[in-house]
Formats: sequence, structure tokens, C-alpha cells
Amino acid sequence: AIDIDRLMARIFDLAKIGALPGGGCKRLALSPEDAESRALVTGWFEARGLEIHRDVIGNTWAIRADRNGGTTAPVLMGSHIDTVGTGGLYDGVLGVLGAFEVIESIDDAGIETERPLAVAFFTNEEGARFQPDMMGSGVAMGELGLDEMLASVGIDGPSVAEALAAIGAAGDEPVGALKPSCYLELHIEQGPVLEAEGLEIGVVTGVQGISWSEFTVSGATAHAGTTPMKMRRDAGVVAAAIALEARAIAASFGPPQVATVGRMRFSPDLVNVVPETAVLTVDLRNTDETELKAAEKWLFSKAETLAKVEGCTVTRRTLARFEPVVFDPDLVEEVAQGAAQLGMTARRMPSGAGHDAQMFAPHCPSAMIFVPSKDGISHNTTEFTAPDEIARGVALLAQVALTRAGH
Amino acid sequence: AIDIDRLMARIFDLAKIGALPGGGCKRLALSPEDAESRALVTGWFEARGLEIHRDVIGNTWAIRADRNGGTTAPVLMGSHIDTVGTGGLYDGVLGVLGAFEVIESIDDAGIETERPLAVAFFTNEEGARFQPDMMGSGVAMGELGLDEMLASVGIDGPSVAEALAAIGAAGDEPVGALKPSCYLELHIEQGPVLEAEGLEIGVVTGVQGISWSEFTVSGATAHAGTTPMKMRRDAGVVAAAIALEARAIAASFGPPQVATVGRMRFSPDLVNVVPETAVLTVDLRNTDETELKAAEKWLFSKAETLAKVEGCTVTRRTLARFEPVVFDPDLVEEVAQGAAQLGMTARRMPSGAGHDAQMFAPHCPSAMIFVPSKDGISHNTTEFTAPDEIARGVALLAQVALTRAGH
Ligand SMILES: NC(=O)NCCC(=O)O
Ligand SMILES: NC(=O)NCCC(=O)O
Repeated sequence: AIDIDRLMARIFDLAKIGALPGGGCKRLALSPEDAESRALVTGWFEARGLEIHRDVIGNTWAIRADRNGGTTAPVLMGSHIDTVGTGGLYDGVLGVLGAFEVIESIDDAGIETERPLAVAFFTNEEGARFQPDMMGSGVAMGELGLDEMLASVGIDGPSVAEALAAIGAAGDEPVGALKPSCYLELHIEQGPVLEAEGLEIGVVTGVQGISWSEFTVSGATAHAGTTPMKMRRDAGVVAAAIALEARAIAASFGPPQVATVGRMRFSPDLVNVVPETAVLTVDLRNTDETELKAAEKWLFSKAETLAKVEGCTVTRRTLARFEPVVFDPDLVEEVAQGAAQLGMTARRMPSGAGHDAQMFAPHCPSAMIFVPSKDGISHNTTEFTAPDEIARGVALLAQVALTRAGH
Repeated sequence: AIDIDRLMARIFDLAKIGALPGGGCKRLALSPEDAESRALVTGWFEARGLEIHRDVIGNTWAIRADRNGGTTAPVLMGSHIDTVGTGGLYDGVLGVLGAFEVIESIDDAGIETERPLAVAFFTNEEGARFQPDMMGSGVAMGELGLDEMLASVGIDGPSVAEALAAIGAAGDEPVGALKPSCYLELHIEQGPVLEAEGLEIGVVTGVQGISWSEFTVSGATAHAGTTPMKMRRDAGVVAAAIALEARAIAASFGPPQVATVGRMRFSPDLVNVVPETAVLTVDLRNTDETELKAAEKWLFSKAETLAKVEGCTVTRRTLARFEPVVFDPDLVEEVAQGAAQLGMTARRMPSGAGHDAQMFAPHCPSAMIFVPSKDGISHNTTEFTAPDEIARGVALLAQVALTRAGH
């Protein structure tokens, strides 16, 4: 039996770090707030007597030894503790503190396991400050190159390497040090499906493909009052048209295709000067790689056309690109059966958000458990999942982890 | 006879302050660069023995006494020395240093006048850092309220009052201290008309109306991967649609209607977060007040509709609003006749840009002289007018000023 009060107290303690005035949290990856939350959570791991590991990109995992004192090939549970700039209390945090609660309650019950159990938090899952997202887990599993990731420059200036150094988050363990026997991640759904269908558990079958592009449109500054419309090369108008094109693509493809323009910057950004440069990001996602490729093709070619018509040029940079991922059918089946055994209502579903689990999927059996999100809201300070919903997700995580660990 | 080499040398000296790497200048109003340029130009005025005046908002004027040593009701010539963020060498500067060249050459020739001659530079004509534009001349002439202008907050944080204090630009003279008998402003056209028609001089008949609005669109942050398109309240999409609507209004009304979205900001401005807030500016201009009002009405109501459709709200703030201005017919006629007497090719034309002259127009006979702008380009670092074109403009300014001053 898990201790939901202990878990909720920890969630609220962690939420004090980077707390926003109106509720919610801002703990961008490798920020001072991230440093503080790493220290708090690692302290809890240590207090429980777990064996702490930290790798070169700041991923941290804590192992409870098997019945013979061994710590290799653990059943790994985890997620992340960084947030976006308008984050809630549960995105990522639930997967880390929920996993720790599983280990603590197993420990409290004096249960010994055949395989070690471990809990991890991975660096920069959100991708809000540094692109791409799922960076730490991607590096740990060899899906992303360490050197390239260390060189990634954040939206506020410093690179990942500089930010790691600034908060002293890097450890000694090399890439490849983390070798789990399987990977399990509990997470809030961050979408509306479970709530709408009145279900308690999402049995996650995989993660949709993610394509992040940054477009830089170049035109020419000009006087807003004297320059005839026909003589303009307005980078801002092109950027606005690309943003609306992204919206049109989502409408034309229909669900599950989504498209989001999250960032937009004009330069020189002055009221009476036609913009010379505009930078915007487009986030495209689809569960089907062929559809996602078609959406990208449409967007990239339309961006070219829109720029050309205005006498501007456009360049594109890939910030993140992950193909759709399918989780291990056996482990997914264990999650579904576990829910049934515990009397929970559940459905199979893909994930709309990227998750660390997708980086493990090619390397070890991996699966995820979703619990409902109120109004489907996430990356918003009002993100909410009720304690009883959380308790069910953690109980299921414990059930599947114990089965895999053997006791 | 004016000394074009002396004038060009001064223009290039001033251009060193706030010089941009690729050419052009950035001397935003009341910035440290503005302070440096004020000191340089005031120093030149002093070296010529002119009587220096500075008022509470930093407007500076320098008077050459009439033949009886009087300094009241001068024939005032002037413009501004602040620039936009991507400014050229001539916008404003020509009107100030050209006027000073007129006074110096009259002085060198030992000519005495019935009325004093004066040269002025006005604070924050550009409106790039602080809105509205033509702030200093507007305050001096009572067209804009001093207290309201001192409280105007710039795009980088400080208010006009704070910025004035930071660079010590304010003087003792109260609002109303500057009482010219007439006002003359030499300026580059900043548009393509004179060059296209092969003409040397623009006889400016008035200034088109200017309407600057700032729209703030409010929606809700949401997860870019999990939030179905139909559930979104995307402030960024609404802002992009308003920007394209402004473009559509200009196309539908046709010339001389122009529309520009110069500023655009998303918040939280993260790649995988649907924007909660978007702020953009729209600059609308027309020579006809009825048309300008119709353009505003269309834009404001469309902004409401676009926001509503997305489940967002929108608020609007007026950053500047000036009705079209008609210059004094007699003084305009004197400019036209002066050009004819000097054998210069000329046409009458309205101004597309706002100018300090429009603040004087309701209070004393006012007029402007335009010289051609290469490729019609301004508010761009490549802004260019050739020395011989400048020389003609200054000679005409001298002719009209001397006529008005009497000698
Ligand atoms: N789970 C989650 O919000 N991940 C962030 C990466 C993304 O999906 O945008
Ligand atoms: N002349 C000039 O560029 N004035 C700035 C104000 C404006 O017209 O935008």
C-alpha cells in the first residue's frame, strides 16, 4: 500500500521551488530553480539510503539493491523535474516522486526483489529552455549526441555545458552507465481523453512523432509611413502568414495532427519600422510518420512561397525531430492487466506529449501509465490531477514494477 | 552661399554616435547615445555664439539675435537628432544641421535680419522608444500634455521622466517658452516619389494622419502536443490574424492607406506552449481623416471578432493619434516660389511620415521642404540622399528663412 499523503506532501514541497505568484511553477532546465529542486529530491533519495548516480549531463538515478545487494540492470522508473515557464505541479514530477513513493512503500513493507528498483530524473525533458526536448534521457540512451547537446544554446544565451557548470549539475558517470532491464513512467495525460471518457488509467501504447522547426524570415526595414505597400519586404507579415498556415495544416489534416507556433520575435521590433527579421517556431505532431512528413513538406514549401511573394527569404533549422514510438507490447499488456487486476477503468491510447520513455523504448522494454488531467490542461499553471487519481496511478506503477522486479 | 562640405562633415561627425556595425545609427530618444549627440550639437551652437535654450522635456533651441539684439518670435528651423533602432544618417539630422548651416552661412556673410533666426532639435520625434512620436514638439506647442508624456513608459522599462533624469537632458524653460513667428523644416522625403519623378524638391502641403494601436490578446497556455486544436485559445494565432488583417485593410483601401505591424511579442514564448498572451502594434496612416477612421473601425472590430472566434479576449491602447495636418498655404507658396526662383524642379506633396512641423502648424505658419531619398528607403541603415540634393534643400531653406526674417 502506497502512502498518498507522503507523496502529496513531497509534490507540494517541490512546488515551492520556482513557485509562480498565481500558482504553478517555473523551473526551466538547469536554472537556479532546477538546481534547488535537484538538491531537494536527491536529498530525499539519500535519506532513504538509495545508491545515487549522476551522469555527465546531470541525469540522476537512485538504486535500491536487489535481495543479493546487486544494483545492475534495475527496473527503472522515472521522469523529470524541470518545467516549462508556465508549468504545473504534476508534469514530470509525478513520474519521479511517484516512483520514489513506490520504492519507499516497498521498502517500508520490507519486500525484497529479484532485480534492483531504481528511480531517475532526466535533464531538460521539457525542451523549453534548450532544444531538443527529452535531452537527458536521449543522451543517456545514445539517441542524442552528448557533444551536440552540450553545445545547444538556450533561449536566454548560455549553452547546456555552461548551464550545467553554472549550477554544478554534472556528475561523473559516462553516457551508457545507465542500463535498466526495463523502463516505466507514470505521467499525467496532459490531454482531455481520460476525463472525457470517465476513465482512471491510460495504458500508453506509444508517443506521437514530434517535429520542431525554427524559421528565420529576412526582409528589409522600411519606414511605416512613407513606404508604399507594394515596395515592402515585410518579414513580420511572412511570419504571421506562416503561423496561420500551420493552423491551416492542422485543420486540413485533421486529428491527431496538431500544429503550434509557440515563439515569435520581430526585429527591430519598433512600432514605425517594417520588420527586417522575424523568427518563429512551429511544433508539428502526428502519430503517423507518413502524415507528419506530409505536414512538414507542406509547411516548409508554403513558407518558401510566402517569403518569395513578399520578396523575403526564409531559412529553417530543426530544433527537434522524433519519429513516432511504439512501446513494448508485452510491457504494455502488463500495464493493462495490472489495471484490470486492481479494478481500475482504463483504455489504451497514444501520448500527445514527448516523454523520456520514448528514448528508452528502442533499448529496453518500456511503457507508460497515464492518469487524468483536469480539463485536459497542461503546460499551464492550473494543471491538476486529484490525489485519488494519483494514488491509483502509483498503485499500478508499484504493481507492474514489482512484477518485473520479482519478489 | 551655404558650405556643403562643412554641413556634410557635421552630418558624418554626428553619425559616429550610435554608429551601427554595418552603417547607419541607433540613437533612441533619451539613450546615452542621444545624450552624446545632444552635447555635440549644442556645443556647435555654442561655438557659433547662439543663445541656447532648453525646456523641461529636453527640447533645445539656439537663437541668433535680430539686428537690434532681440531674440523673441524667431523664424524657427528644426527637426530631431534621435533615430529609430535601424536609422540612417539623414532622418531628422538634416533638418537640424541644415538649419544650423543656414544660420552659420548667413552669419558668415554678415547678414543682419529683422527677426531672429533659430535652430531647434526636439525630444523623441521618432516615437520608437517612447510613444507617441513628435513628443517634444507636441509638448512645446501644447498639443501633448507634459505630465502624461513624462509618465510614458518606454519599450525598455524607464519612463520619459526617468530617462530625462538619467541623461540630464531636461532644462529650465517651461512649456510655452518657445514662441516662433513661423516654423520651417527641411527633411528627407523618406519615400520614393521625388526620385521616381526625377524632381529635386518636395513642397510639403501637409502630413497624413497617424494612428498607432497596441493590441493585447489574451488566451490560455496549453500543451502543444496534447491539446486538440478545437480546445485551444491561442493568443498567437489571433495576433497573426490581426497582422494579416492590417495588411488586407491597406490592400482593400488602396494608396495612400498604409498599415504596418512593427512589434509582436508572445508570452510565454516557448516552443511547446500555446501562447497565453500576444502583444502587437498596428500603425495605420492616411491623408484623409474619414478614410483613416474607417480603417481603424475595420481593424478594431475585426480584432474583436478574431479574438472571439478563438475564445480569446483583446484590449487596445492608443499609442499615438494625430489627424492629418495641412500646412500654411502662404508659407507653402513661398517654398514653391523659392524653388522656382532658384531653378529647382519641384512638386507639391503630402508627407507620409510624421514630423515636428505638424505640431507647430496649428500655432504658427509652418511648412516643410523635402529632398529625395534613394530608393525611397528610410528607417533603414542604408537611407541615402546625395550631397548635391542636400545642398539644394539647404539653399531653399535659407532663401525662405531669409525672406521670412527680413534683411
Ligand atoms: N511531457 C511533456 O510535456 N514533455 C515536453 C515535451 C513536449 O512534448 O513538448
Ligand atoms: N520622420 C519620421 O520618421 N518620423 C517618425 C515618426 C513616424 O512618422 O513614424
